[in-house]
Amino acid sequence: MILTFLTDFGTADYYVAAVKGTVLTLAPGTGIVDVSHQVPPGDVETAAFLLGAAAPAFPRGTVHLAVVDPGVGSERRILAVRTAVAWFLAPDNGLLTPVLDAAVSVRSVEKGDLFLPSPGQTFHGRDRFAPAAAWLLRGEPETGLGPEIGDARRLPAPPPRRSPGRISGRIVHVDRYGNLVTDIPAAWLPDGPCRAEIGGRTVTRRAGHYAQIPAGEAAILTGSLGTVELSMNRDDLCRRWGIGRGAEVIIVWNGS
Amino acid sequence: MILTFLTDFGTADYYVAAVKGTVLTLAPGTGIVDVSHQVPPGDVETAAFLLGAAAPAFPRGTVHLAVVDPGVGSERRILAVRTAVAWFLAPDNGLLTPVLDAAVSVRSVEKGDLFLPSPGQTFHGRDRFAPAAAWLLRGEPETGLGPEIGDARRLPAPPPRRSPGRISGRIVHVDRYGNLVTDIPAAWLPDGPCRAEIGGRTVTRRAGHYAQIPAGEAAILTGSLGTVELSMNRDDLCRRWGIGRGAEVIIVWNGS
Amino acid sequence: MILTFLTDFGTADYYVAAVKGTVLTLAPGTGIVDVSHQVPPGDVETAAFLLGAAAPAFPRGTVHLAVVDPGVGSERRILAVRTAVAWFLAPDNGLLTPVLDAAVSVRSVEKGDLFLPSPGQTFHGRDRFAPAAAWLLRGEPETGLGPEIGDARRLPAPPPRRSPGRISGRIVHVDRYGNLVTDIPAAWLPDGPCRAEIGGRTVTRRAGHYAQIPAGEAAILTGSLGTVELSMNRDDLCRRWGIGRGAEVIIVWNGS
Repeated sequence: MILTFLTDFGTADYYVAAVKGTVLTLAPGTGIVDVSHQVPPGDVETAAFLLGAAAPAFPRGTVHLAVVDPGVGSERRILAVRTAVAWFLAPDNGLLTPVLDAAVSVRSVEKGDLFLPSPGQTFHGRDRFAPAAAWLLRGEPETGLGPEIGDARRLPAPPPRRSPGRISGRIVHVDRYGNLVTDIPAAWLPDGPCRAEIGGRTVTRRAGHYAQIPAGEAAILTGSLGTVELSMNRDDLCRRWGIGRGAEVIIVWNGS
Repeated sequence: MILTFLTDFGTADYYVAAVKGTVLTLAPGTGIVDVSHQVPPGDVETAAFLLGAAAPAFPRGTVHLAVVDPGVGSERRILAVRTAVAWFLAPDNGLLTPVLDAAVSVRSVEKGDLFLPSPGQTFHGRDRFAPAAAWLLRGEPETGLGPEIGDARRLPAPPPRRSPGRISGRIVHVDRYGNLVTDIPAAWLPDGPCRAEIGGRTVTRRAGHYAQIPAGEAAILTGSLGTVELSMNRDDLCRRWGIGRGAEVIIVWNGS
Repeated sequence: MILTFLTDFGTADYYVAAVKGTVLTLAPGTGIVDVSHQVPPGDVETAAFLLGAAAPAFPRGTVHLAVVDPGVGSERRILAVRTAVAWFLAPDNGLLTPVLDAAVSVRSVEKGDLFLPSPGQTFHGRDRFAPAAAWLLRGEPETGLGPEIGDARRLPAPPPRRSPGRISGRIVHVDRYGNLVTDIPAAWLPDGPCRAEIGGRTVTRRAGHYAQIPAGEAAILTGSLGTVELSMNRDDLCRRWGIGRGAEVIIVWNGS
């Protein structure tokens, strides 16, 4: 069985290892794959984006564990979401927004006998999430986790919109290369010319891949998630233009 | 078999991979779990803290390899320590201080035929530690590593102290979130009010978890190792107050 | 089967996980070992150095996947190189320079039915390299990848040179500790005294390991790849002297 693991723990502490050790103690033989532990502390939006982007690549039956949890120890619930292909465990703070629409069941993990005795209330990753993940990795019945619920929290995410000759959306991620990833489906782009407007800048060039973009220029292309991306060739557009996550993008054209 | 791996190698060089490849060549099928490779170069204290904190989460029989080794190539010994539940390999520079009290045997790894031929004396991680770890992972007899010794080096670690109405200890770790982890057992705290004094600051608030702490304030809570922790809610106390590892903490109260 | 994985993707995005998930979907049970994902974006030279340094430690039959690919989506080819002991997959941009001399076969991976359907042309790591790696990991015939070719690209790499009493070479890597790794075989050094000249500095001290070097001084030693290294003891020579990759090193001596 495979467990993916996504947190804001960083890689300089013992936290990631303590969770993995606990999983391997309770579910021996699990293959663990890191998604990232570099989520900025408490940044649930980034975690939700990364989880939604990475999960489709994994085999059927994978358990995805995501712990970005500023409310650790409080009354916030722990969610276990089952889709047709995988399991997802995360705090009930919106992190699972990308998978809730595909959920077959959503449970609140609260069977206390599942949890490890804890010295404190600050490390549910090790003391609650890890044993819950191991429970699923061992193939134990999901009813042992806790009751189904109907009110899981979602992040507010205004969807991209389109009208004739006009699309609007947002930058939802900036990657290591400075590419600006939007939430606009690339299939919405017109066949003919268009222009993207963002932060007072205008981009009219279209490209199929980065190497097609002339040095120093930006272009509109189809990114790895099938959405519109704004990019430079071997340069960091985010840094160049000082534009980051959340910025609005408008794409307009004539004659549509 | 599981090997955990802790170093100051960073993740931008080939060093971590070369050690793992050597282990997998000599002990096929080993599951390798990184603790951290972000220990500051040569910082044996941080490595000792992380090892002591992470190891208890792992299954019985795990081999823990820790290489923070500014004395590599010199006469410093390589230690193999067996406890009731696990093996530990590290240079004899104090790194194994957290596990020496629980040691069943402490050996100096010096059987030269165990080591790989080396072009130089700068990479014992690959050429000596990896084959020693593989030896244990394959279940070979520990007597093949070298003789038992009785004088393993320990880090000087003044223990926390308590007297009626007063506890003193130190900050032993600062985590990614800026939480100040002390060496003071949380069980020593009084039931009633107390105040922590550190670096000219005073903390009187007690909290069970981070989300209970009002914005901009610090609190005393029980951390993930069962020791006293000083923290803010969604803010970095270390950076705010400019207080780091080694700082003294005094906790005082009346009526005890 | 073991896959090593080297990229410039960083560890804050979902890219590394998406490639791993795809490999695990197509070749279940693969053991994946990261070499590094911290290669500076587009830095093919660093990737080539790390791959050449790490690969020899891995078991026979390992598949090494390296994706530093600024030309992704363009006409650049994908190479599959077989040596007597391992497989190497990378873009045809010079990254495989260190293994081409030992190649038994060099193929262009271009059988389109091998690739995954892609929303765009920006993530061949997931959509082309991962299925090609899985093909090899499953033991499928290499002829299914594409035709043999004879013109794989190589990085320009002026070899180190020697004449009586004089060696010249270059800094080919700076590691986390600030050690300056050269391309000069340590076996070329004279038995007697010599001096290294680099960036207007002179080093005459020889050392066997770092702890032998007096504080604040630099020394010549044999590094972990069997080449000459210039280093300080517990200090960062690269930062101290402001000397980095590509700098020329001259070693001279009398009486040879």
